Amino acid sequence: MEKKPLNAQGAEALAALLQQTKDAYDAFQAKKLSLNMARGKPGPEQLDLTLPLMDALPADAGMISESGDDCRNYGVLSGISEAKKLFADILGAKPEEMFIGGNSSLELMFACLQIAYVKGIAGCPAWKTLDKVKFLCPVPGYDRHFALTEYFDVEMIPVPTDENGPDMAMVKKYAESDPAVKGIWCVPVYANPTGIVYSDETVRAFAALKPAAKDFRIFWDNAYCIHHLVAEPKKPLTINQACEESGNTDIFYQFVSTSKVTFPGAGVAAFNTSKTNLDELSKSLGIQTIGFDKINQLRHVRFFGNADKMRAHMEKHRAVLKPKFDIVLDMLEQEIAPLGIASWTKPEGGYFISFNAPKGTAKRIVQLCKEGGVTLTGAGATYPYKNDPDDSNIRIAPTYPKCEELSQAMELFCICVKLAALEQLTK
Amino acid sequence: MEKKPLNAQGAEALAALLQQTKDAYDAFQAKKLSLNMARGKPGPEQLDLTLPLMDALPADAGMISESGDDCRNYGVLSGISEAKKLFADILGAKPEEMFIGGNSSLELMFACLQIAYVKGIAGCPAWKTLDKVKFLCPVPGYDRHFALTEYFDVEMIPVPTDENGPDMAMVKKYAESDPAVKGIWCVPVYANPTGIVYSDETVRAFAALKPAAKDFRIFWDNAYCIHHLVAEPKKPLTINQACEESGNTDIFYQFVSTSKVTFPGAGVAAFNTSKTNLDELSKSLGIQTIGFDKINQLRHVRFFGNADKMRAHMEKHRAVLKPKFDIVLDMLEQEIAPLGIASWTKPEGGYFISFNAPKGTAKRIVQLCKEGGVTLTGAGATYPYKNDPDDSNIRIAPTYPKCEELSQAMELFCICVKLAALEQLTK
Repeated sequence: MEKKPLNAQGAEALAALLQQTKDAYDAFQAKKLSLNMARGKPGPEQLDLTLPLMDALPADAGMISESGDDCRNYGVLSGISEAKKLFADILGAKPEEMFIGGNSSLELMFACLQIAYVKGIAGCPAWKTLDKVKFLCPVPGYDRHFALTEYFDVEMIPVPTDENGPDMAMVKKYAESDPAVKGIWCVPVYANPTGIVYSDETVRAFAALKPAAKDFRIFWDNAYCIHHLVAEPKKPLTINQACEESGNTDIFYQFVSTSKVTFPGAGVAAFNTSKTNLDELSKSLGIQTIGFDKINQLRHVRFFGNADKMRAHMEKHRAVLKPKFDIVLDMLEQEIAPLGIASWTKPEGGYFISFNAPKGTAKRIVQLCKEGGVTLTGAGATYPYKNDPDDSNIRIAPTYPKCEELSQAMELFCICVKLAALEQLTK
Repeated sequence: MEKKPLNAQGAEALAALLQQTKDAYDAFQAKKLSLNMARGKPGPEQLDLTLPLMDALPADAGMISESGDDCRNYGVLSGISEAKKLFADILGAKPEEMFIGGNSSLELMFACLQIAYVKGIAGCPAWKTLDKVKFLCPVPGYDRHFALTEYFDVEMIPVPTDENGPDMAMVKKYAESDPAVKGIWCVPVYANPTGIVYSDETVRAFAALKPAAKDFRIFWDNAYCIHHLVAEPKKPLTINQACEESGNTDIFYQFVSTSKVTFPGAGVAAFNTSKTNLDELSKSLGIQTIGFDKINQLRHVRFFGNADKMRAHMEKHRAVLKPKFDIVLDMLEQEIAPLGIASWTKPEGGYFISFNAPKGTAKRIVQLCKEGGVTLTGAGATYPYKNDPDDSNIRIAPTYPKCEELSQAMELFCICVKLAALEQLTK
C-alpha cells in the first residue's frame, strides 16, 4: 500500500488499495489471533515487580500502627496515619485531609456520589429529591466514571478537551450558572484516554470556580499521578495548592490508588478533601462499613517506606511500559500518519493512547478488529452514554499484551483503520 | 450485701443495701479503671491465632486461581472459585450461589439495600420512589443493622424474639399483608445480642413466607455460624435447605465473613443467594467497583485449605473465649441471680450476652459503669432508633478484655446493676 495521503489519490488507486487492504485483513484473520486490549490492565511482568509486597508484612512483623492501633482489629475508619502520610506526600496533600480506603478508588467515588444522592451534602437537598442533576464530563473520558453518574440518573454533559484540559470557559459557564450542575469528572494527569496533563492555568481555573450549587464537587481522579513514561515528567500544579490559594478548599475530592502501582484489585485506594468534607462523608462511610483493610494499608506502607521509594518503583513500571507505547506510536507513525486520515495522542504517562479515526469509522474499526481477533475498548466508550457524536475516538490500551502480541495487534489495527477509511472513501 | 431477692426486703434493709452498694461503687471509682466492652471485638490473643495467615501467600506461592485467573490483576467480580467453595461449604450453600466480596459483610448488606433503594430489584420500583418502606427488626438486635436501614429512611418495626427466634406469627402477618414491608434483619445463629439459635421451625417459617412485596428479602446475617462456645454445637437447619424445600429461593440474602475468624477489617466477606438475585445484584455491583481483593481471598483459601480446617481453627477461638463468657456468667449467677431482679442469656456461641436489667434502669447502669471506668454498648443500642421501650436491655461483650480486666469490669457491672435497682426501689 502506497503511503501518501488518501485524499490525494484517485478513485482507481483507492479501489486498488481497498482490495490490497482487504487481502491483508483476510490473511490476518486466517491467523486466528485472540488478543484483548480492551482495558487498562497491567501486564504480568508489571505484576511481578510487586511480588515482594507479599512478603512485606510477615507474621512476626508487628501489626501495630504508628498511632498505636492494632491493624488486625476493628476501628480507625479513615485509615492508619502512616498510610495517610504516604499518600499525602504523593498528592501534595495534608495527611489530616486524607482518607485511606479499601482496594478501589472507584468504590470511593461511588460512595461520594451515593452520599450526595441519598443524604445530601453541604446542607443541600439530597440529589434523589431533585428533578434534575447534571455532571460535566470532559470528553473523551473514562467509561467507568460515566457509568457511576449514569447509575444515579445524572444527566451527563460532554465538555471538549484540548492539550491543556477541559474547555474551562464552558466548565465555568455551566458550573456557575446552573445549580443543577453538581460536579465534573477529571483525570488531571495523563488523562484517560488522552494522556494529557492539565495545564497550571486549567488547574487554577478549576480552583477559582464559584459554582451555583453549593454541593458542586470536582471529582479529581489522580489515578496516574506517578505513572510516567518519560524520565523528566511535567510537575503540574496540584489541586491542593491551587485551592489553598483560591480559598476554595471544599470544592474537590481527589482520588488516588495503588491499583497500577502494586496490584489492581489488591492495592490501596485513598481520597483527599477538606477536613469539613471528610467529617461529613465519614459520618455516612462509618455506617456503610466498620472500616477498611488496615493490614493491607500497613503492608503497602512497610513495602514502600516512603513516597520517594514508591516513585522509584514506578521507574520499573516505566521500563516495562515505554517500549509498549513505542510499538503503538511507531506503528501508527509508519502506517497511518502518511495517509493523513487520523490523529492520536503521544502521552508522557498513563495507560492509554487516544486515537481519532476518520469520522464515522470508529465502530467499524472496532468491529473489524474484533472479527480479526483483537478486542478493543468499545467505540463510543469514551463518551457519556457511549455516544461519540463523531464515531471517531478509540482508546488504545497497550499495557497488557506482550510486546510481540502488541505488534501483531497493532498491525491488525492499522489494517482495520485503513480498511474502514477506504470503505468510506470508496462507497 | 445480702443475697436474697430485693423484693423480699424491707425499706430499712434496702436503704442499708443502697448505702453499702454506693460505698462499693465509690471504692471502685477510686481505682480509675478504663475498660471498653462496647463492641464485639476479638481480643489480641485471638488475633494472634491468625498470625500465620500473614505468611500463607508468600511472593513465590503462585497467584493463579483454580479457574486460571491471575489474582493480582483486575477481574472476577464475584470472587475466586476456591473461595466460593470454601464459604459454600461453611454455609451449606452452592458455590455458584456465592459472591465473595471485600473485607466487610456490612458493606455487602449496605450494597444490597442501596441497590433496592436506588435502582429497585425484582422488577419492583426503587425504594426511593416509595412513600414508605418498612423493615422488620427482631429485638434485641444489632445496632449496625438498624443504622443501615435508618440510613435509607426505612421505618423499622421491632419484632419480639424468644429462645426460638423472632415471633414468626408477627413476621408472617407483617410480611404477607403489607407490601411496604421489604425485609427483615436476622442473625440466625448465636444472634447478636441474645446468642439464641433459630429453631428449625423458625427457619422453615421464614422459608415458607409469601410476602406481599416481591422485593421482600430476608437479610440472613450468619456472622457467627461457626463461632461456637460448646463442644457439641446445635446443627440448625440452613436457610438454603429450607428455601430449597419450600421453592422460595429468591427470598433471602445470606451473609458471612471471616471478621471474627481471621482479622476484623482484614478478613473476607461473602454473601449467598439465588442465581437470579446474584445476576441482578452483580450488574450494579460491577458498576460500583471493578472487583474485590482476590489476593486476600486466595490468602484465606491457602491458609485454611477447607471448611473443616476453618472449623478446627474456631476451636482455638473457643478455648480463648469460653473462659471469658464463664467469668461473666459466673459473676452474674453469683451476684445478681439471688436478687431476683434481672435475667440474661447463656449463649452456646457468638460474641454477646444479652442482659435484661430491671425496667427503667439500663441507661442508668450504662452511665454508672461509664463513670466507674467501664464503657458498655449504649443502652437502647439493641433496638431500632436506640429506643428500648423498657430501658432494660444491655449487650455485654466479653471478648475483648483480658480475663482479669473482665472480672473487674463485671464486678463493677454487678455493683451498678444493684445500685440502679436499689435507687429505683428506694426512691
